[in-house]
Amino acid sequence: MPVTLDQTAADFDAAFDALISQKRETAADVNDAVHAILEDVRARGDAALIEYTQRFDRLALTPDRLAIAAEEVDAAVAEVPAAQMEALKVAAGRIADFHARQKPSDDRFTDAAGVVLGHRWTPVSAAGLYVPGGTASYPSSVLMNALPARVAGVERIVMVVPTPDGVLNPLVLAAARLAGVTEIYRIGGAQAVGALAYGTQTIAPVDKIVGPGNAYVAAAKRQVFGTVGIDMVAGPSEILVVADGQNDPAWIAADLLSQAEHDTAAQSILITDDKAFAADVARAVEAHLATLPRTAIAGESWARHGAIVTVPDLDAAVPLIDRIAPEHLELAVADPEALMARVRNAGAIFLGRHTPEAVGDYIAGPNHVLPTARSARFASGLSVLDFMKRTTIVGCTAEGLRTLAPHAIRLAEAEGLGAHALSLSIRLNLAAE
Amino acid sequence: MPVTLDQTAADFDAAFDALISQKRETAADVNDAVHAILEDVRARGDAALIEYTQRFDRLALTPDRLAIAAEEVDAAVAEVPAAQMEALKVAAGRIADFHARQKPSDDRFTDAAGVVLGHRWTPVSAAGLYVPGGTASYPSSVLMNALPARVAGVERIVMVVPTPDGVLNPLVLAAARLAGVTEIYRIGGAQAVGALAYGTQTIAPVDKIVGPGNAYVAAAKRQVFGTVGIDMVAGPSEILVVADGQNDPAWIAADLLSQAEHDTAAQSILITDDKAFAADVARAVEAHLATLPRTAIAGESWARHGAIVTVPDLDAAVPLIDRIAPEHLELAVADPEALMARVRNAGAIFLGRHTPEAVGDYIAGPNHVLPTARSARFASGLSVLDFMKRTTIVGCTAEGLRTLAPHAIRLAEAEGLGAHALSLSIRLNLAAE
Repeated sequence: MPVTLDQTAADFDAAFDALISQKRETAADVNDAVHAILEDVRARGDAALIEYTQRFDRLALTPDRLAIAAEEVDAAVAEVPAAQMEALKVAAGRIADFHARQKPSDDRFTDAAGVVLGHRWTPVSAAGLYVPGGTASYPSSVLMNALPARVAGVERIVMVVPTPDGVLNPLVLAAARLAGVTEIYRIGGAQAVGALAYGTQTIAPVDKIVGPGNAYVAAAKRQVFGTVGIDMVAGPSEILVVADGQNDPAWIAADLLSQAEHDTAAQSILITDDKAFAADVARAVEAHLATLPRTAIAGESWARHGAIVTVPDLDAAVPLIDRIAPEHLELAVADPEALMARVRNAGAIFLGRHTPEAVGDYIAGPNHVLPTARSARFASGLSVLDFMKRTTIVGCTAEGLRTLAPHAIRLAEAEGLGAHALSLSIRLNLAAE
Repeated sequence: MPVTLDQTAADFDAAFDALISQKRETAADVNDAVHAILEDVRARGDAALIEYTQRFDRLALTPDRLAIAAEEVDAAVAEVPAAQMEALKVAAGRIADFHARQKPSDDRFTDAAGVVLGHRWTPVSAAGLYVPGGTASYPSSVLMNALPARVAGVERIVMVVPTPDGVLNPLVLAAARLAGVTEIYRIGGAQAVGALAYGTQTIAPVDKIVGPGNAYVAAAKRQVFGTVGIDMVAGPSEILVVADGQNDPAWIAADLLSQAEHDTAAQSILITDDKAFAADVARAVEAHLATLPRTAIAGESWARHGAIVTVPDLDAAVPLIDRIAPEHLELAVADPEALMARVRNAGAIFLGRHTPEAVGDYIAGPNHVLPTARSARFASGLSVLDFMKRTTIVGCTAEGLRTLAPHAIRLAEAEGLGAHALSLSIRLNLAAE
């Protein structure tokens, strides 16, 4: 059974702090092993990739078979049932449409001193997308990671996906094709991250690497950060459902379990102002668990990390929401907009009783790569901006420089930076000052 | 003497690769020492801070003296010469004005299916600003790091600055006041980063930490990343000047030295299409070095990491610029806009013969915290966006969900996620499908 907290109880604050500080992940220390693999890929390139793929994926490759060829993708895509392909297309279209609105604007203006100022956005040239193999291989993740890159204008979108024993995942390849992935390699693990970061004889290096992976992949991304950009390293998924007593307990229970089924380290929390409803939801969770396919995972997550928090009224929930800073926040209340207006920290908000979080995982349009582990206090979900960079622009006329330089020279001198001051003063007709 | 490369030479590519791959920094491995300090601050709070400040800064503090009081700031500010204060004010005004234009817009719309979609930007609640003590204590950095936070709407802007032997830097405190810093503590090093990340009895924790520091500070920021957000960890400064033969060699030489004087690990590169001009610049650098105050640092940087690259024409410079991906790019050419339009990777661009990079360090308006070490391929300078986060929004009506859910259910089932599918299907009148 999950923990049940009552905000009016004397020990609430300590218990709530304990809940949100729970360390749910035990990250194995694989840094040394990963470092060795990365160095080996950097030094030996394709040969190292092929060796690790043989060892970890039981797959014998040659350099010319590192890439999954277009004909292989064709064949895999042909296997995807029509209804699934249609669903992928609808999802890809909606995700692309939503992200297209995120494209940032350039800015250029001339200020009162006659100085040209502005900024310009450009896409990164090449992005790498890590896709896990096996059971964690989600076509929806391919869409969510690749489409913002395509919308940003990235030319090379390079996917790596391990294919243990050589088995391809048709739906993943179909998603890659729909999302505009330009190259696909059948490699995984730290060695794939190394290939993307440093390049090999066959694989040209990229500028940015995104996508989820196991502990080795996460460690490898951290180690190559700086050589390339990386997305945030995601923790276990979370959902916070804020619900009044007017909801169907079975609906809310399903929502809580939709995160719990991801991972035994996932966390699902319900906040409600109705104690009887809270008890109904707890019962409904048990009832669903009796029938769901991933009941072992979902049940363990719910028992170990789940929580039901009762509050005297929904106003009291607001500071709790901001402290939790949830990845996903469902507001299943009568006036979700009013509640949302008072909330500050959440990766994504789902409004009202007919917006289960799962609609956002697949099809609504916004990205499902979102900040976990309370990082919604300072971080955002994946977006088009993650695949672009901004260059600022300054252009002075001789006259504009004459206006600004005296102040800049004073500051440079105060900081003891003589060449800075010289680079300004040498351009002035000092007699004219 | 710096290296001189000729793009038409047979061995150019290898020599150019070696130039841009130079490892200029030797980062001491201080991770274990930093880890111990952070854990100590987390466990003992103020007491640990006070102990480390005694040890490293030779300064005896009590909890009530951790903060630099408003009266101390008043007294320090009163010491700042009027011309310097005026220069700081002009700079602060221009930086705030430029950054105000970066404030992002919210978005909200209803799509064809009747689904409400959008995103909302909110500021982080509290930002920490690390300011180095001693000679690297730059008031311009205080403005550049604090003003974007203030423009973003951050409520608590918390500055930490070590004050070895208790000596305050009046100009730094004046900059903090002008920039809207709300709290200042006289602590530094890894212990200050720990205090900002975890909080102590006296210092409330922040959500994001920015600002430059030594190897200990950089390691501490990396270690607390995840608990809080951090800015990028900056490497040594760089400038790339692209200049035709119509420039005054003494001007361009001063620009090259303005980065070289920061640090012996800094890198200054000139690309020109005029070999005689290249030689003139090299001579002018030597002439300036004879008179500049920081000649030892600038001279060592120029000798070890400086480079002059000659190209047959400026078109040939474009791919070199993008491979260097410089932090600062000066285009001292007849038509800088045309050249800029063809360049993709640069942190900041300075247009024309009258725009020395130093004008951007202090007063132009754009941020001087910029991506180094080729990271302009994927990263941007500090901006208002670094102090805000985006929450995405989805709101379905019963009807809207009915439109989207069947596709989402198909994908959830294909991914084997039964509770995801259930959370959708349970809300549908399945008979109506």
